[in-house]
Amino acid sequence: MERKILGITMGDPAGIGPEITVKALASVDLYRRCRPLVIGDGDILERAARLTSHTGIEIHRVKSVKEAYFRPGVIDVYDLGLDQMDAAELGTVSAAAGEAAFRCVEKAIMLAMDKEIDGTVTNPICKEAINLAGHHYSGHTEIYAAYTGAKNYAMMLACGNLRVAHVSTHVSLRTACDLVREQRILDVTAMVWRACRAMGIPDPVIGVAGLNPHSGENGMFGREEIEEIGPAIERAREMGIRAEGPVSPDTVFSKAIGGWYDAVVAMYHDQGHIPVKVKGFVYKEEEGKWNSVSGVNITLGLPIIRTSVDHGTAFDLAGTGKANEKSLVEAIEYGIRLAEHFEGGEALDSRKENQTVEG
Amino acid sequence: MERKILGITMGDPAGIGPEITVKALASVDLYRRCRPLVIGDGDILERAARLTSHTGIEIHRVKSVKEAYFRPGVIDVYDLGLDQMDAAELGTVSAAAGEAAFRCVEKAIMLAMDKEIDGTVTNPICKEAINLAGHHYSGHTEIYAAYTGAKNYAMMLACGNLRVAHVSTHVSLRTACDLVREQRILDVTAMVWRACRAMGIPDPVIGVAGLNPHSGENGMFGREEIEEIGPAIERAREMGIRAEGPVSPDTVFSKAIGGWYDAVVAMYHDQGHIPVKVKGFVYKEEEGKWNSVSGVNITLGLPIIRTSVDHGTAFDLAGTGKANEKSLVEAIEYGIRLAEHFEGGEALDSRKENQTVEG
Repeated sequence: MERKILGITMGDPAGIGPEITVKALASVDLYRRCRPLVIGDGDILERAARLTSHTGIEIHRVKSVKEAYFRPGVIDVYDLGLDQMDAAELGTVSAAAGEAAFRCVEKAIMLAMDKEIDGTVTNPICKEAINLAGHHYSGHTEIYAAYTGAKNYAMMLACGNLRVAHVSTHVSLRTACDLVREQRILDVTAMVWRACRAMGIPDPVIGVAGLNPHSGENGMFGREEIEEIGPAIERAREMGIRAEGPVSPDTVFSKAIGGWYDAVVAMYHDQGHIPVKVKGFVYKEEEGKWNSVSGVNITLGLPIIRTSVDHGTAFDLAGTGKANEKSLVEAIEYGIRLAEHFEGGEALDSRKENQTVEG
Repeated sequence: MERKILGITMGDPAGIGPEITVKALASVDLYRRCRPLVIGDGDILERAARLTSHTGIEIHRVKSVKEAYFRPGVIDVYDLGLDQMDAAELGTVSAAAGEAAFRCVEKAIMLAMDKEIDGTVTNPICKEAINLAGHHYSGHTEIYAAYTGAKNYAMMLACGNLRVAHVSTHVSLRTACDLVREQRILDVTAMVWRACRAMGIPDPVIGVAGLNPHSGENGMFGREEIEEIGPAIERAREMGIRAEGPVSPDTVFSKAIGGWYDAVVAMYHDQGHIPVKVKGFVYKEEEGKWNSVSGVNITLGLPIIRTSVDHGTAFDLAGTGKANEKSLVEAIEYGIRLAEHFEGGEALDSRKENQTVEG
């Protein structure tokens, strides 16, 4: 199989993105499995190589995908001429850095939509910085949705074998309760099903969480399980999806980690984020920082592939060369997996929503 | 230090309680550290000893605490004359088993209130069975509250170094949002502080979680952090408690596991239960069952000590002798720790609520 081309955005140049990118691409093995192309700026990558003591790596600037070498020891950078950003002070929020980060994302999406690359992997951006630069989005997901025209999308987090997609994300918990609706749950379940298939799981089993404690105990505390979640599961089953639930929220994730479910549909942001971060984030007390940050963020429902690190810009670590590249490596690996299983990532496209999954 | 006397209820006789009790009390080491007294029925314990192949252990029936031997190789049972329950079919819900389970809890509370024992440890009961028997409680906590007159109590879960107390438990998520109120958060924070002290942590640091994703991002999605949680933390600090937050719900537990917090105040049932169970429950796919169930449930705000296993009756496992006693052993260990640090568990008493903690 031809190695897939993954566009990796450098992220906010003032954050850890460029450094973890260099560290991740220092792996010879990675180049055997994909053709990585950084989308960013050559000067910033040069600086990151120095900061991480990878001065032996050649930073190769290209202006088109076909110029890239894709060989170990060389980092190909699709150079957007953001070199004025080289001055962007490490560890600070700025409109200049936000602008640079935004333009990388925009270019990555366009290259993927044009099928010049097979998938995109994003490094952390700073919401405040991109807004300072005049781009009013709350994050990557919204930028991707706007640029690809996706209407029906969902955030999946993955950490090892734990995969969780969310019915809602950045809304208040009260609003999240209101968003627990049959059609949305069905849509997310179908997106998760397709994503699992795109990851090479032929007949995925999906655990659908309840909203209330113990899934409401037959309506004793909360009726969403009876009125919205149960019917959505029923309809998913009619489509041929092996969906189970509503499963008590406090055991569904342990069961998924134990292999019972290939993925979980979480009813709100923290229901899904808490287990993923308990599993993947290891905090080091002495140093007051994360020792290991493992986890991948995957946007479902797009016509292109997008995976991402599951952490922020970590401005406090930027420039130290110490940031851990684990999450980025995992995001690249998920990107490879998705790109290899479905050309163009069509299986993640929400536009197929109304078909039966067998169709 | 004199070994503390812990009353251990046998739980629902049709569940795994009697079996895990025998397995836990087969440990010689345990007897060096406490004086365990099972509260239940001799015949049922005899059966459990057979089912778990611990036939070498003597089941010693007593009618008062002072008759107990408290020595390894002997399980002292405060015999409540529930022997008609011996017939209670394993693995089934029945009023008879519910009645037996209830009477054990009632006796344990009375012995502790009379200071005949230093603390209580409970095995799982079946809510349906105790209700069939005419005792209309939703669980142990409510029975304890009713019998001790406690008005202000909270559920803490502990698994290793992760300790989480809950602002609310068995209510719908919508109701849980309504219960996120300054005074209640302060009360729970103070109870947690006292519990940590009673566990031998001299100056506990308590992480108070937010309610909304990312703690609402300065009111962007949800205002409970600004209007209720923040002010409660402020007041706790004025009392001399090292409370921090509101901490983003999706990182506070990883930080606690990493040692940053000695305990966490969770805003609702699943916010706290999910991380504890992800940490403590290990699911075994091949057998479709929990391989390891670790975790302790501690009721805060009572005038007596109560710790408990963090799992249910597991009727499907009852009689197999295979149920894992780990959670019970941990509950006993927490019971010892609490009993040794504070005579009579006064430090857990919510009636001290309005003092400053230094007072």
